[in-house]
Amino acid sequence: MSYAQTLGEIRTDLAMETHQLVAGTSGSSVPGVESYTEEKGTTKITRVIIQTPEASQALGKKPGYYVTVESPALRGRDKDELEEVAQVIAAELRTFISGFRLSDEASCLVVGLGNWNATPDALGPKVVEKILVTRHLFESAPPEKRGGLRPVCAVSPGVLGITGIETKEIVAGIVQRVKPAFLLVIDALASRSTERMGSTVQIANTGINPGSGVGNHRLGLTYESLGVPVIAVGVPTVVEARTIIHDALEQITSMGGPSMQAYRKEVIDRVLSPYFQDLIVTPKEIDVLINDIARALAGAINIALHPGVTAEEVFRYLE
Amino acid sequence: MSYAQTLGEIRTDLAMETHQLVAGTSGSSVPGVESYTEEKGTTKITRVIIQTPEASQALGKKPGYYVTVESPALRGRDKDELEEVAQVIAAELRTFISGFRLSDEASCLVVGLGNWNATPDALGPKVVEKILVTRHLFESAPPEKRGGLRPVCAVSPGVLGITGIETKEIVAGIVQRVKPAFLLVIDALASRSTERMGSTVQIANTGINPGSGVGNHRLGLTYESLGVPVIAVGVPTVVEARTIIHDALEQITSMGGPSMQAYRKEVIDRVLSPYFQDLIVTPKEIDVLINDIARALAGAINIALHPGVTAEEVFRYLE
Amino acid sequence: MSYAQTLGEIRTDLAMETHQLVAGTSGSSVPGVESYTEEKGTTKITRVIIQTPEASQALGKKPGYYVTVESPALRGRDKDELEEVAQVIAAELRTFISGFRLSDEASCLVVGLGNWNATPDALGPKVVEKILVTRHLFESAPPEKRGGLRPVCAVSPGVLGITGIETKEIVAGIVQRVKPAFLLVIDALASRSTERMGSTVQIANTGINPGSGVGNHRLGLTYESLGVPVIAVGVPTVVEARTIIHDALEQITSMGGPSMQAYRKEVIDRVLSPYFQDLIVTPKEIDVLINDIARALAGAINIALHPGVTAEEVFRYLE
Amino acid sequence: MSYAQTLGEIRTDLAMETHQLVAGTSGSSVPGVESYTEEKGTTKITRVIIQTPEASQALGKKPGYYVTVESPALRGRDKDELEEVAQVIAAELRTFISGFRLSDEASCLVVGLGNWNATPDALGPKVVEKILVTRHLFESAPPEKRGGLRPVCAVSPGVLGITGIETKEIVAGIVQRVKPAFLLVIDALASRSTERMGSTVQIANTGINPGSGVGNHRLGLTYESLGVPVIAVGVPTVVEARTIIHDALEQITSMGGPSMQAYRKEVIDRVLSPYFQDLIVTPKEIDVLINDIARALAGAINIALHPGVTAEEVFRYLE
Repeated sequence: MSYAQTLGEIRTDLAMETHQLVAGTSGSSVPGVESYTEEKGTTKITRVIIQTPEASQALGKKPGYYVTVESPALRGRDKDELEEVAQVIAAELRTFISGFRLSDEASCLVVGLGNWNATPDALGPKVVEKILVTRHLFESAPPEKRGGLRPVCAVSPGVLGITGIETKEIVAGIVQRVKPAFLLVIDALASRSTERMGSTVQIANTGINPGSGVGNHRLGLTYESLGVPVIAVGVPTVVEARTIIHDALEQITSMGGPSMQAYRKEVIDRVLSPYFQDLIVTPKEIDVLINDIARALAGAINIALHPGVTAEEVFRYLE
Repeated sequence: MSYAQTLGEIRTDLAMETHQLVAGTSGSSVPGVESYTEEKGTTKITRVIIQTPEASQALGKKPGYYVTVESPALRGRDKDELEEVAQVIAAELRTFISGFRLSDEASCLVVGLGNWNATPDALGPKVVEKILVTRHLFESAPPEKRGGLRPVCAVSPGVLGITGIETKEIVAGIVQRVKPAFLLVIDALASRSTERMGSTVQIANTGINPGSGVGNHRLGLTYESLGVPVIAVGVPTVVEARTIIHDALEQITSMGGPSMQAYRKEVIDRVLSPYFQDLIVTPKEIDVLINDIARALAGAINIALHPGVTAEEVFRYLE
Repeated sequence: MSYAQTLGEIRTDLAMETHQLVAGTSGSSVPGVESYTEEKGTTKITRVIIQTPEASQALGKKPGYYVTVESPALRGRDKDELEEVAQVIAAELRTFISGFRLSDEASCLVVGLGNWNATPDALGPKVVEKILVTRHLFESAPPEKRGGLRPVCAVSPGVLGITGIETKEIVAGIVQRVKPAFLLVIDALASRSTERMGSTVQIANTGINPGSGVGNHRLGLTYESLGVPVIAVGVPTVVEARTIIHDALEQITSMGGPSMQAYRKEVIDRVLSPYFQDLIVTPKEIDVLINDIARALAGAINIALHPGVTAEEVFRYLE
Repeated sequence: MSYAQTLGEIRTDLAMETHQLVAGTSGSSVPGVESYTEEKGTTKITRVIIQTPEASQALGKKPGYYVTVESPALRGRDKDELEEVAQVIAAELRTFISGFRLSDEASCLVVGLGNWNATPDALGPKVVEKILVTRHLFESAPPEKRGGLRPVCAVSPGVLGITGIETKEIVAGIVQRVKPAFLLVIDALASRSTERMGSTVQIANTGINPGSGVGNHRLGLTYESLGVPVIAVGVPTVVEARTIIHDALEQITSMGGPSMQAYRKEVIDRVLSPYFQDLIVTPKEIDVLINDIARALAGAINIALHPGVTAEEVFRYLE
């Protein structure tokens, strides 16, 4: 059964959620998908490998490797817990970097996707603000003189409605000039579950694909389109309002009630205003959530990118 | 039948919505409530007068006069349409001011409630930023030398979590020193309907009551608590997520399906994360909505407060 | 006599000021420089044409055409006066566009230089926020279906310290992908005179040259480096502190006192802290100045770029 | 010799600077003023006690105790150095609190003076944003249940041009309702020396007096006007432009040149535009300076106010 048929109005950018949904309906495991879960303290790591075109179609996600790190500490403010999760995320990021056979000196362009004028979509630009940028400091210095710092540069390209230019075009232009060894692209995501907002980081070796993200990217940022490896890092910051309603109707069945899915479309049409294209569910204090998660994620990225930087230093450093 | 029984999980700060809900279930009209509707162009005005303690209890709103002005132009950017709605709102505001027998020289303190660090709750402070403040300009000038400007001052007192002080205490302290003839208090509201977000202004002569507003005020700002008339001006900027789910289940019945209300509490518990106290539904571009409506509302208030200021001037003035 | 010898510690990005300074000392006119002044109401227009390499060296500015529009209305808030100056600036901009033989359909990339985290340097990014961006709206529409709108896109590339990438590289990358017919580049400038802060716009057909701007660009953005015409638009927002002191000492002589220039270097060293590389003089309300001038300049640019947009519409449009 | 005669155009809000200036001209020490200097590591502490009305008039400062803590670490980003200075400032603040015989349970209202829309004047509101506010958490808890936290509340009252109300009136109103045991009032100052910008904290037991601060307060916030002790904490963020010019002319004499003070007024009039009332000298990166110093100062205040909070915790806490 295909993703579209199964998922209906449920929108999620997390591979682990689409896998759960499809696996849930089709019995147990989806052919062509491998999935593992492990726990480190309060942190839960889920690895999903989509191996075949069939699995890719069934899940509606590109073939590739998706890691999800979940921990309530991410949206909390306990420094010790946060440092711990940041370490876990950094370790996963380093595995992705090694997976592309990139050395500690390989230069990285960090790209913060999303609209800085729309709070739930502003995660990428907020992370970029806190990235430890070093490329300009040692353009001519040999690696041994770089003090454990990788050459890193960072941009927030904005969104089509603000610039009049497809994000992909801006990034491709910069890649052509700067020639980074790889890209690390940050984006705000939509998940299925309100519980995962601000508490989950997905890392994928597939790049950013059309239709994904809170801002719904029209063109992809991938190895195929840019010519360099693209590691995608995303955090769910919203759940679409229609997903919530769909979910509510589905829950009735799972609680032993009748199926209400026949009413789905009409209920959604009646409850959600047609005026707004994108109604979303967020915490009331969305600004705080975005700022907290941006700080945590930037910390993890700074540790992962710069071999000479420790978690302690990152969170000691006064931004 | 009381408000609580009827409304269940549906939360709204709009008197016209609670009236519709209660009237809808109890047959036609609620005893002790008068309600009229009129249309001016694309603008719809609903007047609700809650006259008796019984009606007040049934609707869960204080006795008083509530006017709701609805127009999609409010969240649009067509200047001509916007000017028209602003005129309508200003005329209603002036009726409230006259209703308190306040002259054109009576001094006004505008209070912007809400948390400037939480986008959906930041409407009040954003409006206050755009109020034409004049009190300090002619403290000693006689009325005829004031060029058609009323003495107006304006503050945003912040919220309890930021200041450590109840909003009501800050406002009461300022009222005691400044001795304004009346207060105009702006607040972001929760409505039942996603369609009304950013397109509806409620004006009430009841002041601000405990439990109302996106920020859920703990203490009231009323004539009783402050000793001066308080005109409350609110705009719905969010719908609570639980309201959406409740509404979806209710719609099934209204579409001829079975009643699903028995499942309500459990569905809400399963779909909404317990982590977040307040999950809300907003447009993805909530920042733009808040800025647009703040500009429109501040324009209407500036016209209403200052007899010598015209709509044309207000919207010509470059803020 | 060369620019450096004459000007000493006086820093200015305005060609009209360097011309005045050099002309002032060398008698009357500088060979190879033509200069005209005209007045339109309260607006003063100065045209400087630097024609020869010698003149270029004497003035320390690239050969080319520099127009300066001066009017106190620019930093004021009188809408009628502002509209008038905006019209004058727009007319000059259109002359530059025609000068490059560019049609009304020729696509434009607007570039906002400067650091959005440093108020006096944030003019470019603030202007870009208010540009009427249209390129994405009619990528496939024929010119006659564009309603008098030119294809315009806009970016703020940030500064080296934020991105780790030379601004010029980012812009060159985008130009390569977007292939605009010309660039319009906005920047905050340093002038010699505190009176010109926020009241003067310089337009030049020379692009942006190394060492210019409040942010001191390291690489140029010019026809030579980018392959498309570059119209530079700048507004002085600061005067360097060392310029003020130099000027003070010079004034003594011009008032009939002895020359104090022998003391210059030591006085500057003693009065200005070595800690800060760049001490500047600005009005205390620098934020307001930047916002006001950004709005005025964006208005003028929107009128100039889009043949179908009038001044009235621009300043009516609610940003 | 009086302050006015001696100081001419030199404006400073630091008692140690006026004392130096007056003492410098009148020989050695000013009668009625005691002054001590001590050094702790890279930190220099100057204590000035103005004891008599005559000394007060000579220095143009109210009688009282003024402590100045100077350290370049304050505007730096080395966490260890910063923690050290913050400890020194906190210890001085605690001495002031004890000086008023206030216990660890005495409630404090922190007031952030200044205009949040003018970067150089925004220090007070920025500090207030970072104060650990606790008053609302244990209104009814007995002291032993407060975990080493003092009841602290905090407001930024805005400025007259924004609110239409004298700052003093807003603060007095809040004091009347909240009845704090003492006030701690933060403000941005003007100093004489560019070197002291962002590297100096002045603490005084005199409150805030008319004419002081970047924003030039019109009314005082003092024990006399409010009825509770007022500890004033200020940091120079600007030097007035006229002070720089005056200083430059004075330096010539101190370097063995002739006196240029006769030219002073006319030079200032010629060099500084009459359009701007307040031309100031700041670093180009004024926004960064304000943010850094706000974080350092808020840290010191949080340590000083809350007996159970350590420097390590304050700077570990992720703001």
